[in-house]
Amino acid sequence: MDFLLWTSVLGTAAFAVSGAMLAVQKKMDLFGVNILALATAVGGGAIRDLLIGQTPPVMFLHPAYATIAILTANVVFAVASLHRRLPPGRIAALYERTLALSDALGLAAFTVNGVSIGMESASPTFFLAVSLGVVTGVGGGVLRDMLAQEMPAVCVKDIYAVAALAGAVCTAFLWSRVPPEAAMSLGFCVVLVIRLLAIARHWNLPRIR
Amino acid sequence: MDFLLWTSVLGTAAFAVSGAMLAVQKKMDLFGVNILALATAVGGGAIRDLLIGQTPPVMFLHPAYATIAILTANVVFAVASLHRRLPPGRIAALYERTLALSDALGLAAFTVNGVSIGMESASPTFFLAVSLGVVTGVGGGVLRDMLAQEMPAVCVKDIYAVAALAGAVCTAFLWSRVPPEAAMSLGFCVVLVIRLLAIARHWNLPRIR
Amino acid sequence: MDFLLWTSVLGTAAFAVSGAMLAVQKKMDLFGVNILALATAVGGGAIRDLLIGQTPPVMFLHPAYATIAILTANVVFAVASLHRRLPPGRIAALYERTLALSDALGLAAFTVNGVSIGMESASPTFFLAVSLGVVTGVGGGVLRDMLAQEMPAVCVKDIYAVAALAGAVCTAFLWSRVPPEAAMSLGFCVVLVIRLLAIARHWNLPRIR
Repeated sequence: MDFLLWTSVLGTAAFAVSGAMLAVQKKMDLFGVNILALATAVGGGAIRDLLIGQTPPVMFLHPAYATIAILTANVVFAVASLHRRLPPGRIAALYERTLALSDALGLAAFTVNGVSIGMESASPTFFLAVSLGVVTGVGGGVLRDMLAQEMPAVCVKDIYAVAALAGAVCTAFLWSRVPPEAAMSLGFCVVLVIRLLAIARHWNLPRIR
Repeated sequence: MDFLLWTSVLGTAAFAVSGAMLAVQKKMDLFGVNILALATAVGGGAIRDLLIGQTPPVMFLHPAYATIAILTANVVFAVASLHRRLPPGRIAALYERTLALSDALGLAAFTVNGVSIGMESASPTFFLAVSLGVVTGVGGGVLRDMLAQEMPAVCVKDIYAVAALAGAVCTAFLWSRVPPEAAMSLGFCVVLVIRLLAIARHWNLPRIR
Repeated sequence: MDFLLWTSVLGTAAFAVSGAMLAVQKKMDLFGVNILALATAVGGGAIRDLLIGQTPPVMFLHPAYATIAILTANVVFAVASLHRRLPPGRIAALYERTLALSDALGLAAFTVNGVSIGMESASPTFFLAVSLGVVTGVGGGVLRDMLAQEMPAVCVKDIYAVAALAGAVCTAFLWSRVPPEAAMSLGFCVVLVIRLLAIARHWNLPRIR
């Protein structure tokens, strides 16, 4: 099946989970949960489409994306309602982990999706593909965090944009050398592995105290 | 007279009031009041135009919109200056109510405006028209709240996007069945009535405590 | 040499400094510093390009802009690391002043850049050129402040958008009367002088207490 479509669908669902989780954490009501899930899930793709002049963006043409986001949001809301009986400490840890994992999946999927759109655009260059990949990857999360009044993950999470950049460079470099499916799969794994290792091992970049 | 133009003008003025009121609440100076009023008033339309590929957006072609927003902002500022003599409690209540009412009017006007632009675009579908309506309706307010560092109303106000969605669906459903003016008027009333009832009766959607 | 290019390069570098300084102030890590510098430096230009329908935006076509922003960000980070030995009070004052000066330079450069792009667009009007100038000028700073969760300078700093507006009007007025280089130089000086005087003399617009 079409790999580009797969990354869109997976990224949409994963980012919808991360948006819905953050909304639940922030005590938003059911509609706030849907809105934040939607904005996170389709935001990156909408920014990507505006940047390459694809208007209206794909999310306005195919109801599938919004549908996936809303279904996902409501499942998250229902599951989160059940979890209310757990001890608060365990809930917080569970939320934290689900949010981080779904965010990493969305980041990986949309990064390689953006690279592939850049490579198939009218004037494909390595630089265009890589930067479109990074912007598409981080776009949904930035929108999510700005709407929820959180400091955007891309600015404060160690090795966040670095992971997207590494995966984008990898996918773009391999694009004409191996089948696109292989380039995208490998780039996807690069983003995901770097991001998850960074979370697990608390990798840090220098900062000024 | 042209109904589409009417909704633009009414929405611009109403959102300018809501932006100016929030800026006054936030103790911004006269220019901050103008900026926030402008961003709120023309923001939704600018997002709409970018999404359908209308560049430059209409607000850059016709000075009328910016003029309406700026005149409105200065009237609000002047009136708010006079109100300083009222007791603080009454001022706060008055501000709150004016902000909510003008925001509801702007939401209603821009929602049906967006639906009608979607229906008159190159490839009109029910889904495109409804989603363009909701995005145009909530866009200005989201920009206003993000600039003023408030949690966006669309994420936390109960029955906010629901009102826009109901009005957009109503307008889009009636579009080919009755004259556009009737479809837009009815959709406008649906948004306004649902939103104002939700405020007055404190309607709530479920949330997780 | 081409004046339009000069304003782009100067504005990019100046806004990169301001973005990097704010990130350092906010204790972001090295990558956060790069991200905020990049967003500030290329944000205004990207918004300008989206508004006039130039897709992909220039920053995606020419790696030079991102390169300038990233080099600048790393120099700022390195210099800021050295300054850690200064007494805290002097550091704060130094940061404050560097941020204000670089922001004023970026505002001036991008404002006249936007006016000139507006004047060379398909349907140049005085209003389009002035509003494109102001939006391009303030756009990068708004993005920077929203990403860093600061109240946008344009909303709360006295005489910020006023400076951009005065310079834009000046450049647009002179456009067909003197050579473009002269119009842009004069407009640049108008923005810079008004903004710096406003900072130095604490000029205020009325606000409601």
